[in-house]
Amino acid sequence: MARCDELARVTATPGTIERVYLSPEHARVNRLAAEWMRELGMRTWQDAAGNQIGRIDPAFATPPPSPRAPQNRASATDSDLSADAVRIRSAAPNPETPALVLGSHLDTVLDAGRYDGIVGVLVALEVVRLLRVPTDGGSRWAVPLPFAIEVVAFSDEEGTRFGKALLGSSAVAGTWNDAWWALADADGVTLRQAFLEFGLDPARVGEAARRPDEIVAYLEAHIEQGPELDWAGEPLAVVSSIASARRFQLVVEGEARHAGGTPYDMRRDALLGASEAALAVERICAGEHHIIGTVGQFEAFPGAVNVIPGEVQFSLDLRGEFDRERDRVWDALARDLDEIMGRRGLRWRSRDVHSAPAVFCAPLLRDVVRAGIASTLPVRSDAPPEIFSRAGHDGMALGAIADVGMLFLRNPDGISHHPDEAVSAGDVAHGIRALAESVLHLAAEPR
Amino acid sequence: MARCDELARVTATPGTIERVYLSPEHARVNRLAAEWMRELGMRTWQDAAGNQIGRIDPAFATPPPSPRAPQNRASATDSDLSADAVRIRSAAPNPETPALVLGSHLDTVLDAGRYDGIVGVLVALEVVRLLRVPTDGGSRWAVPLPFAIEVVAFSDEEGTRFGKALLGSSAVAGTWNDAWWALADADGVTLRQAFLEFGLDPARVGEAARRPDEIVAYLEAHIEQGPELDWAGEPLAVVSSIASARRFQLVVEGEARHAGGTPYDMRRDALLGASEAALAVERICAGEHHIIGTVGQFEAFPGAVNVIPGEVQFSLDLRGEFDRERDRVWDALARDLDEIMGRRGLRWRSRDVHSAPAVFCAPLLRDVVRAGIASTLPVRSDAPPEIFSRAGHDGMALGAIADVGMLFLRNPDGISHHPDEAVSAGDVAHGIRALAESVLHLAAEPR
Repeated sequence: MARCDELARVTATPGTIERVYLSPEHARVNRLAAEWMRELGMRTWQDAAGNQIGRIDPAFATPPPSPRAPQNRASATDSDLSADAVRIRSAAPNPETPALVLGSHLDTVLDAGRYDGIVGVLVALEVVRLLRVPTDGGSRWAVPLPFAIEVVAFSDEEGTRFGKALLGSSAVAGTWNDAWWALADADGVTLRQAFLEFGLDPARVGEAARRPDEIVAYLEAHIEQGPELDWAGEPLAVVSSIASARRFQLVVEGEARHAGGTPYDMRRDALLGASEAALAVERICAGEHHIIGTVGQFEAFPGAVNVIPGEVQFSLDLRGEFDRERDRVWDALARDLDEIMGRRGLRWRSRDVHSAPAVFCAPLLRDVVRAGIASTLPVRSDAPPEIFSRAGHDGMALGAIADVGMLFLRNPDGISHHPDEAVSAGDVAHGIRALAESVLHLAAEPR
Repeated sequence: MARCDELARVTATPGTIERVYLSPEHARVNRLAAEWMRELGMRTWQDAAGNQIGRIDPAFATPPPSPRAPQNRASATDSDLSADAVRIRSAAPNPETPALVLGSHLDTVLDAGRYDGIVGVLVALEVVRLLRVPTDGGSRWAVPLPFAIEVVAFSDEEGTRFGKALLGSSAVAGTWNDAWWALADADGVTLRQAFLEFGLDPARVGEAARRPDEIVAYLEAHIEQGPELDWAGEPLAVVSSIASARRFQLVVEGEARHAGGTPYDMRRDALLGASEAALAVERICAGEHHIIGTVGQFEAFPGAVNVIPGEVQFSLDLRGEFDRERDRVWDALARDLDEIMGRRGLRWRSRDVHSAPAVFCAPLLRDVVRAGIASTLPVRSDAPPEIFSRAGHDGMALGAIADVGMLFLRNPDGISHHPDEAVSAGDVAHGIRALAESVLHLAAEPR
């Protein structure tokens, strides 16, 4: 929790939390994360897309901890680890060993909370800490593991700066698209320029890509970003799937005219058309099951008090449990926009800026996360809850090269992407323990 | 027309026209206007609020024109002036003589056209040119005038920079309000700071105020900023009154939350409430006679694609022929906003940033403008059209200290506050002639 606070102080806008891709704040939190990884005996590097990675091979031995390195701060002790671990017999000390990847992201939205993404990276580090036991020379795994462990702090999940989400994890998944280089931020800086200014070489982004055979699985802990666990009184959940998502940038064009002199029947007011569009998104999505549409960016131009808006630019974020439902809703919305804009003498156009199919968590990983939670929490008559994630996660990109599993932490009142975003220290302690148990359950699976 | 083009090149944003109060562009156009005034033999000064003024007393003689000074470019020649002028018998060469003030403004909205305001200042200068005849030493009035003539280029009519309109003319009218000093522009620069940076002394703004006994009347030519003359096939109109206007800045507050994780029944989406508000403005005003309401500024915060807007800031510009109607519509809208925001769990508040009562043009000035148009244009069976101005003008402020009269020029398709804003050279030539004739008709009135 203290490290969440420490990361929250790394912000572009004092008083709020704001860390976007390829910013000075991105570099600073990567350095902090790398330091924390090395404390745990991990080998660290920043990849070609600015993701911060730490790795420990199955057979490792750290040097004695330096005086500055904190001791194990996890709430559970090593001796509590579940008996399943003893089922593991051996692990070759092979530097080529495939890795179980644990991680989440360190970038934020604007005016963000301090846990979305961040807590997943820090939980992963505490899992590494919890799985070790001290030795004379430093530490070693408490039980042999058949895989390496990598912790990845993804550099861009939110897409705050360039509108396109999952840039960091897409690079790792090898699904980087060269069309993205021309994306520009609010100041007109392109993704290509930002890479260069950050000290990265755009030509080498492909080096961040990992092969499927290098990765055993991807496991991520994350706050729910919704109220279901809080309402159910449960601290942890197995994630069943991650929502299918599409993002659009829309433009409505009318005609800028003098606000006083132009009678209503001569107006082609882009703001009124776009206002109807925002309300149509709500009306259509609210009538569907498991579809959510949000207009988050919305600005009228030229933006003068006495000028009828000639143009409105706005975003649409559309999510659903299934790709087909999501696309059907977009088609219905497009028909509505045709009607609204036609009636008002306006034109509209849209640009598809992000599209991610629904990702279903792998059955094996759902099983091990379920077992991890069950090993951690008091036994209940029913299994831990399973939740469909409406929010997007790095696993959506990683799904292209690895099986994906996720564990959700309770998020009080479901408040996220907001300074009031919260998670309790007790739930985080449970989450660390449950994810560590999940790792041991996975290690125990026949391979 | 060439000078309209020349002024259009003085812009803060190349490729568009943007000249706001107390900007470097404001200083540049004042210098140009002063130069043009001096060419006509006017004494010039910039007043304490940045208005550029030129004055000629009833008995004046200019030095011979300098080689650089252009010759008379008006389309009518001096000898065409109407016979009414000969009715004037004498005028005392008194430097304290009250002045007939002709003028308009040189500031613009964002992405403006090149005629709104500008053409009124340039028409006023051409009227001065047209009323003169050459002498051996320079020039003199073609006929003696019983008043001085001042041309005023007002510095702020649109209110683009500080949200408050008519700053320049309010200073002249002596209705400056010290509460305005704290108004800030989009960069947080206050009006007080902007005064100092422009080289003006805030403590001396009162020196711009004129006494009612110094002013014979205020006459302004302006493009219509509406389509009525174009639809009627008329080049010029008498203005009967200037709309009553109020401007508000409104804020809708909800809660910023994650766009994916928050179900519709947990949302308090400020954008959807504000969208309903914009549509309510249209619905309520369109149901009224001679009431126009416009939402021109509208922006959602924090403005991220995957965050539900927690706040929207928008403007409302409300105009009507009568103050009471306008205020009744605002009250009805406020009731609607209470209902919309209450239903959506949102809060709203408004700030009254500008209020100007309707100004009725003085009957005498309506008469002389009507006579001026009739002296200029081919005789028609009916009188020149009379139009109620929905747009605000400097006369709204000047009405506090002087009788106000206005002449409208045809504005093709009513497009204004837009780069396509137009006026024809032929209509401008008619307008110059008609305003000059109006001045002579006023001079001929018994005083």
